[in-house]
Amino acid sequence: MKFTINRDLLLQNLTSVSKALSTKVQMPVLTGIKFEVKKDCILMTASNNEISIQALVKANEQLLVEEEGNFLAPGKYLIDLVRKTESKDIDFIGYEDNSIKILANKSNFTLKGLDNDNYPIISFDNSPTFITIDSINLKQIIRKTTFATSLSEARVILTGVSFQTNKEKMQVVATDSFRLAKKTLIFDHEYPDVKVVIPSKSLEELNKILEETDEVVEIHFTKTKALFKYRDLLYQTRLLEGTFPNTDSLIPTQFLTSVTFNKNELISAIERVSIFSNMEVSSIIKFVLNADKTAEISSKTEIGDAKEELLPLKCDNGVAFQIAFSSKYFVEALRSFNSTEVTIHFTGEIKPFIITGEYDHHLVQLILPVRVA
Amino acid sequence: MKFTINRDLLLQNLTSVSKALSTKVQMPVLTGIKFEVKKDCILMTASNNEISIQALVKANEQLLVEEEGNFLAPGKYLIDLVRKTESKDIDFIGYEDNSIKILANKSNFTLKGLDNDNYPIISFDNSPTFITIDSINLKQIIRKTTFATSLSEARVILTGVSFQTNKEKMQVVATDSFRLAKKTLIFDHEYPDVKVVIPSKSLEELNKILEETDEVVEIHFTKTKALFKYRDLLYQTRLLEGTFPNTDSLIPTQFLTSVTFNKNELISAIERVSIFSNMEVSSIIKFVLNADKTAEISSKTEIGDAKEELLPLKCDNGVAFQIAFSSKYFVEALRSFNSTEVTIHFTGEIKPFIITGEYDHHLVQLILPVRVA
Repeated sequence: MKFTINRDLLLQNLTSVSKALSTKVQMPVLTGIKFEVKKDCILMTASNNEISIQALVKANEQLLVEEEGNFLAPGKYLIDLVRKTESKDIDFIGYEDNSIKILANKSNFTLKGLDNDNYPIISFDNSPTFITIDSINLKQIIRKTTFATSLSEARVILTGVSFQTNKEKMQVVATDSFRLAKKTLIFDHEYPDVKVVIPSKSLEELNKILEETDEVVEIHFTKTKALFKYRDLLYQTRLLEGTFPNTDSLIPTQFLTSVTFNKNELISAIERVSIFSNMEVSSIIKFVLNADKTAEISSKTEIGDAKEELLPLKCDNGVAFQIAFSSKYFVEALRSFNSTEVTIHFTGEIKPFIITGEYDHHLVQLILPVRVA
Repeated sequence: MKFTINRDLLLQNLTSVSKALSTKVQMPVLTGIKFEVKKDCILMTASNNEISIQALVKANEQLLVEEEGNFLAPGKYLIDLVRKTESKDIDFIGYEDNSIKILANKSNFTLKGLDNDNYPIISFDNSPTFITIDSINLKQIIRKTTFATSLSEARVILTGVSFQTNKEKMQVVATDSFRLAKKTLIFDHEYPDVKVVIPSKSLEELNKILEETDEVVEIHFTKTKALFKYRDLLYQTRLLEGTFPNTDSLIPTQFLTSVTFNKNELISAIERVSIFSNMEVSSIIKFVLNADKTAEISSKTEIGDAKEELLPLKCDNGVAFQIAFSSKYFVEALRSFNSTEVTIHFTGEIKPFIITGEYDHHLVQLILPVRVA
């Protein structure tokens, strides 16, 4: 094995596939990045059983392959090495004892390979059932839904995000049963039937690789896997098994009143009111609407009380009304909107309420209130 | 108690005194910041037994005191509250039950006070024995020495930095017995006799408060304490008891050879050579000098080997010579220099070596080598 590759190109591809590197020592081969060096390209593969990623680098002026070969490199060390190297190009040369020599400027490394023979066989499967979506849109979907998935393994299905198509429509839903995020996409033509649940973690790692461009991502669905094809990268994740709850009927359509706020001012006010409680856990705040359309939020803790007047930009009906909910859930939901103005639609004091945003079409965030004394 | 204070002024002073806040729950009063509100000023005090800090804010257009009083505020919460407040001024009003009302724009907080009556009496003691030094110089001294103190409590005296005057000279020394940092200051007149050891942690916290200006810091020494007077701040730390080892004879003056390098290139090379070991712990690297005045550094680990050629800018004597030492100690010592070029003065293969820098006058870093097979 012998090749010369541009340092930046190598680092970019290593960084992408590293998202699938395992940190578990139980299977040492999965801490490695597999190099398949062929005459006209190199394949780099990493997998942690949940996610598998493969990068293809074609031979050109940035990659010169002199001799084919395979090698399983310790992922973390190789990436660290390439990152700290300042040379434009790096030479890789197969060496005795399953080692490689790596030459970069005045640096000379010998890196011991992992046990290539025991690396699992990973197939990246195309499927006749696939959809396409712009990278930037896919990133938005991920950002607007994954935060609402469950962290608890009690109901594993809720740790994933549901993707379901129906003709031209695709509904993407996440819920931990105390809140729900729902984004609906309308395509310009009918799409094949898809009904899958993708692990939240897999989507978050994918999000780190995708860039905010209009490049197309193809998503291929098989019974157990989803394969995202993006540039020269294959990103494959296993799907969650089980039935995602039907959430259509949960989202209210009749409201007591709707109140519109400046999103950032509302978030700042909630953060101030939550100062005496630990927002990372779950601090409960009270929202009060008055008949004269003024509003306030407040919290009470052992350390002290906090209260903040709010000035709604708009309020449908002034009704004397109060409701309590998790400030963490509320702020996370608000942050999912791109809009400057958000509207909260209340249905009753102990009933779920929803949030919408002027420029976030087909996005609904729902939160269940809590009962307080 | 009633006063109105500019938000930025308050936050700046709270942030300074917070460096002395205790996080230990054993003494809850020490998690508080004590407010002594007088007609013409406010004193804010915090202490964790090691360090005590007091800020003085004088009444002026940024502080209006309407009613005197005392209050012991939960430090962390008060700072968080002020930080998240956007209003220009903040009103504080004493309230029933040892509480205070805090009003800022549309926010309204009630904060419960801690047990003021049980707050320790802290005296900040001036002394006839004091020296003065520019803030920027004091920061440099701290940065160039504290890193070399011991982290182990086995010899407590080595967890501090020794300050010792001798007529116009002051020697500042830190050592963990494997390395030593020594900075000598030459004043323009004789100073009183000082021979103290200041806890490294206290100096590091002080460093966060001092700014890089030529404002004068007065340092008052008593038998058990050092008091730093800086702007309207009093920063007092306890001293370490015991005798600091005499290190004068440790620093060699006769050398086998001296080799000069570009500092940043040398640091990068060491970091690359240390890639396969954990630099946070202690990775050993080998330095080889050849008779032809070329040099290289290398390391060997289970993961792989790394070797890097070095190009000395200058080399007194080309001698065939090798030495091994901790890469962590070496890099930390190198980073303490402001100079572009550093010179390593070797005395022998298993003897301590020292580092100096062209523009870092009176600074010596010493490192003990290790024996390797």
